[in-house]
Amino acid sequence: MPSSSVSHPKCNILVLGAGNFGSCLADHLGDSDHNVCMWSRSAELVKTFNETHQNPECLQDHVFPDNIKAIGPELPSADVIKGMDVLLFAIPTEGVRETLTALRPHLDEGHLPLLIFVNKGIEIATRSLTLEIIADTCGPQIAKVATFISGPSFAKEIVRRQPTSVSVASMSEPHAERASEVFHQPWFRCYTGGDPVGIELAGALKNVYAIATGVSEGLGFENNTRAMLITRCLSEMTRIGAAYGASPLTFLSLAGVGDLFLTCSSPTSRNYTVGYRLGKGEQLDDIIRSLGSVAEGVTTTKALRKVVDELGVDAPIATAVYGILYEGKNLQETVQGLMSLPPLRELDLPEQAGGPVKRLMQKLALS
Amino acid sequence: MPSSSVSHPKCNILVLGAGNFGSCLADHLGDSDHNVCMWSRSAELVKTFNETHQNPECLQDHVFPDNIKAIGPELPSADVIKGMDVLLFAIPTEGVRETLTALRPHLDEGHLPLLIFVNKGIEIATRSLTLEIIADTCGPQIAKVATFISGPSFAKEIVRRQPTSVSVASMSEPHAERASEVFHQPWFRCYTGGDPVGIELAGALKNVYAIATGVSEGLGFENNTRAMLITRCLSEMTRIGAAYGASPLTFLSLAGVGDLFLTCSSPTSRNYTVGYRLGKGEQLDDIIRSLGSVAEGVTTTKALRKVVDELGVDAPIATAVYGILYEGKNLQETVQGLMSLPPLRELDLPEQAGGPVKRLMQKLALS
Repeated sequence: MPSSSVSHPKCNILVLGAGNFGSCLADHLGDSDHNVCMWSRSAELVKTFNETHQNPECLQDHVFPDNIKAIGPELPSADVIKGMDVLLFAIPTEGVRETLTALRPHLDEGHLPLLIFVNKGIEIATRSLTLEIIADTCGPQIAKVATFISGPSFAKEIVRRQPTSVSVASMSEPHAERASEVFHQPWFRCYTGGDPVGIELAGALKNVYAIATGVSEGLGFENNTRAMLITRCLSEMTRIGAAYGASPLTFLSLAGVGDLFLTCSSPTSRNYTVGYRLGKGEQLDDIIRSLGSVAEGVTTTKALRKVVDELGVDAPIATAVYGILYEGKNLQETVQGLMSLPPLRELDLPEQAGGPVKRLMQKLALS
Repeated sequence: MPSSSVSHPKCNILVLGAGNFGSCLADHLGDSDHNVCMWSRSAELVKTFNETHQNPECLQDHVFPDNIKAIGPELPSADVIKGMDVLLFAIPTEGVRETLTALRPHLDEGHLPLLIFVNKGIEIATRSLTLEIIADTCGPQIAKVATFISGPSFAKEIVRRQPTSVSVASMSEPHAERASEVFHQPWFRCYTGGDPVGIELAGALKNVYAIATGVSEGLGFENNTRAMLITRCLSEMTRIGAAYGASPLTFLSLAGVGDLFLTCSSPTSRNYTVGYRLGKGEQLDDIIRSLGSVAEGVTTTKALRKVVDELGVDAPIATAVYGILYEGKNLQETVQGLMSLPPLRELDLPEQAGGPVKRLMQKLALS
């Protein structure tokens, strides 16, 4: 509905990844008059997209602007990278280390494009956030200017220009502001901040809590319980974040409470669906089989369990989800156990940050 | 579902007010084995309740426990008050000053019952929070131990023992803990804290923001927009709260984000309904006429406008709601105006608290 677009300096943008989210962001950026290349590993997708301006794998009904060109399936060459003002990484977290390792030789620290990441999740083998993967593969200087975009943003609504807002965070706030300038439009508002660790943790953890909310709905609980659960999940997420070294206030952001709220209240969220069907009495194996793949929250729950142990922080809801998914715990008894915990002080935050952030700070040469 | 109740020392409790919320709390407290009296101004209600254990005016289908006795219509006598361990005020904010003024002579500061308030809202003529009304009528010592309960809690779900959690706050945390002991059960969990100003502001302001969310839904906006709007409302509420002297983290509580979420996502909320019907093109007068009374948020919007002006804090969403309700502003243009605001830093909080809190601190003899 907001009518007039904001004009920004035209950028050359390479979107890495042509999934749901990469595609809708390419669409938004193309529509904002940037020159956009979208890279995919699928030769078939590249061919079809360039012939029809449609993505055969997602958002199938949508016709993309003419100024988006698909490239691939080989990783973009050094020359392509050199011509870019922005690299937008819209690939799964598990692929970021490999992709950055391959691209690193093409990155010139003197003329670095803006590096923007929109993946969510914790790398399973190492329990690293993307910021740490960037530090590992590209060094601290590049990690410190990397920018993260996250927020409540269903792709199918973005391509219909439904008003959407996101958090844009970088340890270097000027870089977050540059990213905001590239993306900001009246129908896609950007809010900048300086706490990428909090933004990343919120994006990963929300999927675990969406499972919890789904279970509660599947068991038939109503509005009071849903609001209670989302609030206590937010509180737990904030406590874990604070222990990790994030600012507690970051969890009040679009990437925090906004995305948690969207994911936990939408029947179309895959993680919520896993929980809901568990609550209705289905077995996890059957749910995963019929969904066709493992929902992110299911794997993040395992990684989170280790993070929580390492931090020594109290996380009863995440622990309950772990028990249900991996220890065959009974749902009713788990709920009773949670409700029977003694009364607590609300918003008890840990006094100091734990292990993971120290490791991260070292990698960022900030310790 | 959680099965075994927690047993607490039995208390004599007087619930003042027999509306929706007073009744459901009386029900909960009676069910938790306390001795409960419920006061109403309506002789008819008192008579019917004591004969049938049903409330003829609200929660009509519900049968209340035998150990709740209705009293009234005269205000309880000094003797009745003297026998009470807890006074629970479940009357509208506009009636608190008068009721406290009448009861004050019966309160013995040496043997003060626990004073618990569950009303939400800002007194219109003075723009006072209830804490300030208590200080005005009963003095700072009593205000400092007054306790406030607020959170996402539909009465009709409480009487069905749907799991519910609330924030319990007092400037004296030991008093909040005592109140928590009175109320806490596995199906009614209490979380204590020390920031009643934040809890009260959240409870009042959420009604204004529920109107905004209703407008958005009425105009046909979808999930991304709803999540964005609730998040930005929370951010605005936090900014106003911080300027008022509350802790920003209080807005992460059940009374904060929890109640905001419940009120903004429920078609049964009266304030949300006002917004929704405005969004569908109805006129405010017609909506109020068919609702039978003015929704709280409509009057709070007017009080909030003055509070925001006094604080000098930026509150574009509350200002937009004011414009729609009281200045005949066009809905579409108002939305376009909000979406066209320049990009912002997320979570910008004011550096210091403003006027109202100074006045309140003086009244509490804390300045």
